[in-house]
Amino acid sequence: MRKIKVAAAQTSCSWDLDENISKAEKLVRDAAKSGANIILLPELFETPYFCQVEKYEYLKLAKTVEENRAVNHFKAVAKELGVVLPISFFEKQNNAAFNSTAIIDADGKILGIYRKTHIPCGHCYEEKFYFTPGDTGFKVWNTKYAKIGVGICWDQWFCESARSMALMGAEILFYPAAIGSEPVLNTDSRAHWQRVMQGHSAGNIMPLISSNRVGIEKEQNSFGQISNMTFYGNSFITQETGGIVKQLDGKEENFIAAEFELDAIADFRSSWGIFRDRRPETYKTILEH
Amino acid sequence: MRKIKVAAAQTSCSWDLDENISKAEKLVRDAAKSGANIILLPELFETPYFCQVEKYEYLKLAKTVEENRAVNHFKAVAKELGVVLPISFFEKQNNAAFNSTAIIDADGKILGIYRKTHIPCGHCYEEKFYFTPGDTGFKVWNTKYAKIGVGICWDQWFCESARSMALMGAEILFYPAAIGSEPVLNTDSRAHWQRVMQGHSAGNIMPLISSNRVGIEKEQNSFGQISNMTFYGNSFITQETGGIVKQLDGKEENFIAAEFELDAIADFRSSWGIFRDRRPETYKTILEH
Repeated sequence: MRKIKVAAAQTSCSWDLDENISKAEKLVRDAAKSGANIILLPELFETPYFCQVEKYEYLKLAKTVEENRAVNHFKAVAKELGVVLPISFFEKQNNAAFNSTAIIDADGKILGIYRKTHIPCGHCYEEKFYFTPGDTGFKVWNTKYAKIGVGICWDQWFCESARSMALMGAEILFYPAAIGSEPVLNTDSRAHWQRVMQGHSAGNIMPLISSNRVGIEKEQNSFGQISNMTFYGNSFITQETGGIVKQLDGKEENFIAAEFELDAIADFRSSWGIFRDRRPETYKTILEH
Repeated sequence: MRKIKVAAAQTSCSWDLDENISKAEKLVRDAAKSGANIILLPELFETPYFCQVEKYEYLKLAKTVEENRAVNHFKAVAKELGVVLPISFFEKQNNAAFNSTAIIDADGKILGIYRKTHIPCGHCYEEKFYFTPGDTGFKVWNTKYAKIGVGICWDQWFCESARSMALMGAEILFYPAAIGSEPVLNTDSRAHWQRVMQGHSAGNIMPLISSNRVGIEKEQNSFGQISNMTFYGNSFITQETGGIVKQLDGKEENFIAAEFELDAIADFRSSWGIFRDRRPETYKTILEH
């Protein structure tokens, strides 16, 4: 039996970048101590969620994977603790910039990079200003402990991302996120956000882990206009039928962990017959707008 | 504002076919009286769920849409009450037979037929013995009250069905079902079943209605082997973020109804940006096994 323990860590982020790294590291060490093998941190945890505003100087935050501080820092941590760490970062690549995740395996080496496919745009989620739509396509990663799929935040709203990673052999799905208040739309998306991902988990019959940030962040755009967002945390872990087994609240900086038997889940997935009964020849509409 | 009221009716079914029709009709009349415009009955409610067993004589239950009793009966009811009725039936077509739904519009005319795309197979769900995999592809229907998508039972487990119908312009999704106990697998799929569909509703940002049957049904296959199933009802209606707004229990024969403002939901769907941000060029894996 391949038993695996996965963890989701949740933290707030400020412009004190040293503190962001050290808080994330403490949670990773705590989760590893509890036996976690793969530990997920929130999206872009190295900085505040700068996409809250369109601000030209923030374009300079993008770094290559070789230069990015968080990736380099957590390569050493992953190796020391023997844990897998998907690290979300703002990636510079020549004249383009991506919202990326470097997958660091338990030996501290980078297995590769996934670049966020779906880029949101709306008040306080001005990602189309910063990020080139990802050019890697969906990817799965043969880590030391499991074959995993990693999407990034807005990707988690699209059934296509989850299904593609499942078809490519993912056994567990991970989604770092940065989501909170909608300062203009009159909506609280917390339950909606969870239900979409519970659907991916239930429909693909595999656990799903999402880590979100917490805290209030205030920003000022290039016009000098001020805004603020409250990130709602609620990081969670589902089992293979989509039920939430562990969840953090809307404010705490902490981690959750859950253990899964991957071979038993694979047997259940197989017994259920969904992947046997797919009919790709009838899915052409999915490739249209 | 286009206000619409939708209903899900839930009933048990026996080999007293007259009673099946009259019980379904009573629920349709009650739902229409409460103001429902589109009323969903369970899958194959005209008979017991004969697919519980492989029995050669049951192949003879298939009839053309012109011959099928339930379809003909409810054409008159739809016209009298001015309601839309998707009617599930076992359809004969030359030498093939399908698990089909005829969409009867509020004037009693058939808009067309959808044939179930995904056909399950497993102990007590021996549908591959009876049904040719559907050849219509997913379809949406311009009914008097709304543009609707209708899948059939096992289709509800596949994100591709729901997404395809949403991309074709569906405003609400309907799924007649016949699901209950798993006599061999050690699992109760009730919550799993709901969560997958809540995910379709949340991910496509539209209401979803599923009607399931209730009751215990005993069958004997062509070998003389006896089996029985308990259908778990729990017919439900979600709002556009996937939350369940109405639900029946595991035993009652009754209906539920909920009202929706379709234009307000369309505005919310548009504001959320999911359909704007899809990237079909990255979804090719979906068309593979």
